[in-house]
Amino acid sequence: MMRGPRTITLLTDFGLDDAYAGVMKGVIASIAPRANVVDLCHAVQPYQIGQARFLLRQSWHYFPQGAIHVCVIDPGVGGSRRALCVQAAGHLFIGPDNGLFTDLLHEKGARAREIANPKLMLPHVSQTFHGRDVFAPAAAHLAAGIPPARLGKLVQDATRLETGAPVRIGRRFWQGEVAHIDRFGNVITNLDAAGFFALAHKGLELKIGFEALRRRANTYAEAPAGELFVIAGSAGTLEVSLKEGSAAKKLGVGIGAPVELEVW
Amino acid sequence: MMRGPRTITLLTDFGLDDAYAGVMKGVIASIAPRANVVDLCHAVQPYQIGQARFLLRQSWHYFPQGAIHVCVIDPGVGGSRRALCVQAAGHLFIGPDNGLFTDLLHEKGARAREIANPKLMLPHVSQTFHGRDVFAPAAAHLAAGIPPARLGKLVQDATRLETGAPVRIGRRFWQGEVAHIDRFGNVITNLDAAGFFALAHKGLELKIGFEALRRRANTYAEAPAGELFVIAGSAGTLEVSLKEGSAAKKLGVGIGAPVELEVW
Amino acid sequence: MMRGPRTITLLTDFGLDDAYAGVMKGVIASIAPRANVVDLCHAVQPYQIGQARFLLRQSWHYFPQGAIHVCVIDPGVGGSRRALCVQAAGHLFIGPDNGLFTDLLHEKGARAREIANPKLMLPHVSQTFHGRDVFAPAAAHLAAGIPPARLGKLVQDATRLETGAPVRIGRRFWQGEVAHIDRFGNVITNLDAAGFFALAHKGLELKIGFEALRRRANTYAEAPAGELFVIAGSAGTLEVSLKEGSAAKKLGVGIGAPVELEVW
Repeated sequence: MMRGPRTITLLTDFGLDDAYAGVMKGVIASIAPRANVVDLCHAVQPYQIGQARFLLRQSWHYFPQGAIHVCVIDPGVGGSRRALCVQAAGHLFIGPDNGLFTDLLHEKGARAREIANPKLMLPHVSQTFHGRDVFAPAAAHLAAGIPPARLGKLVQDATRLETGAPVRIGRRFWQGEVAHIDRFGNVITNLDAAGFFALAHKGLELKIGFEALRRRANTYAEAPAGELFVIAGSAGTLEVSLKEGSAAKKLGVGIGAPVELEVW
Repeated sequence: MMRGPRTITLLTDFGLDDAYAGVMKGVIASIAPRANVVDLCHAVQPYQIGQARFLLRQSWHYFPQGAIHVCVIDPGVGGSRRALCVQAAGHLFIGPDNGLFTDLLHEKGARAREIANPKLMLPHVSQTFHGRDVFAPAAAHLAAGIPPARLGKLVQDATRLETGAPVRIGRRFWQGEVAHIDRFGNVITNLDAAGFFALAHKGLELKIGFEALRRRANTYAEAPAGELFVIAGSAGTLEVSLKEGSAAKKLGVGIGAPVELEVW
Repeated sequence: MMRGPRTITLLTDFGLDDAYAGVMKGVIASIAPRANVVDLCHAVQPYQIGQARFLLRQSWHYFPQGAIHVCVIDPGVGGSRRALCVQAAGHLFIGPDNGLFTDLLHEKGARAREIANPKLMLPHVSQTFHGRDVFAPAAAHLAAGIPPARLGKLVQDATRLETGAPVRIGRRFWQGEVAHIDRFGNVITNLDAAGFFALAHKGLELKIGFEALRRRANTYAEAPAGELFVIAGSAGTLEVSLKEGSAAKKLGVGIGAPVELEVW
């Protein structure tokens, strides 16, 4: 039972220096005036599907059941890539079929369908801005109560990217990467924190940049000033932090940099 | 018939590093708590009325009928410039009378009135922040159902700026300018795409910066990597793009730079 | 009497490059789907409690009675600092007990209580993101109608910071500081404008950086081009401005820089 208006979230690489995100909200307000539109993030680096996957993975499950997540990182706009609607875990995901929804497609019972019904798009579909012309209208029609099946047929071959998961080497080693760096300079890896902290009975070492870090902290408050440490971050993965400073600057690493973990 | 709450959009040069836009939403929530407030863009360069006109022109018609667009690019605040409410094409536009609404005033049946009724402003009107004290309250009162006539009298001499439109020279040449550069580095001109592409039976050449571009593309997907090309942009005008790169950086041009188009 | 949905404002140092603010809105939408969530500002410099106090002080009273203001500048997250709910002047303030709410605690009848009820937090409370796990849920439950007393017990020793107020020296001198610098480069001091302009029958001098400014202006419009001047700003304090230019750049000062005022 719906307790309030449907939530539509927006995750894009449009930034906020243009009116692109604003125009998408205009399209939504014209079709579903009572929808609750939330900016998830518009600062994904241009075309960085991996970063968008990370931001989506740590976020979508905090939204109410029935939420519609519109994701527009779309380097292939205007080409042959399909538009997709994925239903997973009681949420809906709308965006280009380029691997953005890989993690959702692994959810039990996930279904993907092509968005192909021109009646649920704007009358004129441009070659360069499907966020406005295809994805925002699809999300708004869903929020207004149109069933997903009206968008188009189910597809079995939605794009799944195989990158982005850590690799195990032997019993005690894992190779992963930097998934995101936040405003505070926290270096967020793709290594699941709960799993590794449970395994590390005696200790762990995280190799990143030119450093091999063994110091762990449970909170920022207990961490020593000026020293890098490993912490279980709010996204559920291992992060490298520096108390009231930028770990990313100190390490000199960026998104995609390799990390190696050893536990014992 | 109104299907949902009234939409109020905000277009300013306030940026998001201050609480100015947030405070305007507080004023609106106090007067019209059910209004749907949408950030169109707050990143207009300080005092750049031309850039704001471009962003408004490409955006307002995607919002529902009855939407109220508040535009605060206001270098003359506190001086003698009037506050204006323009009614055009079923939308309302609120802001300083400095030419921001030139394009709307050209719409058939457009009417402009001065905002002069102190009862529809905040009790204390500052000399420096009419977005908060005059424009937000006016928009909120309209959203709450006050008729525009209560704001003040119709005026016939609202400011119209004569810049910003391309000039035709001979049968095959036009001179225009760069209207906006977006986050992706797309260089957006003020040259209407549909018109010129229709005229260019055989070809076109766009002179911009030190380049003379003849390559056209219909989509980013079909464009060659590393080469500048001309495309019909989502704003309906000619744009210069570079596939997965910044055309603006490659060209070295900024907003207001001249462009010349020849078709044959 | 409530005329519309409850307003929840967000003031953080999270920036907009991550999904942190978006996730807080997801938590709120899950608990209080009809709340009206407003971004007050997310660009507070990391951990700068003084800057956040200034932005909050100039903003909260423009929101409707009953508004709930969530403030997350939280360098002590995960440590022993308490979570706080302050009731003052008909508004509610939610955040860490680190002095953010000093100015509100001075309001007549203000009350502070600890947020300690785990039933009004997310099921798993992380050590690093109480904005998501503690503060957003508390605000949302309040917006949904839970009485503040359910959060926890009243406390008498909420943190009050003693910095941030100007100091009087003799009859005609005050020492203050720069509280904020806005996007336009306006240098906003903590010196109350109304009071000092009333005292300055003949003139005033504001010492800041290497300058001693005597020029006052009532509006930007009347100010001379290229010259620094003192003006009563929209926050109600003295500001130093430069017409269509950045006073902060010209002065070379930042937040916290000392200012001295003499009136005669």
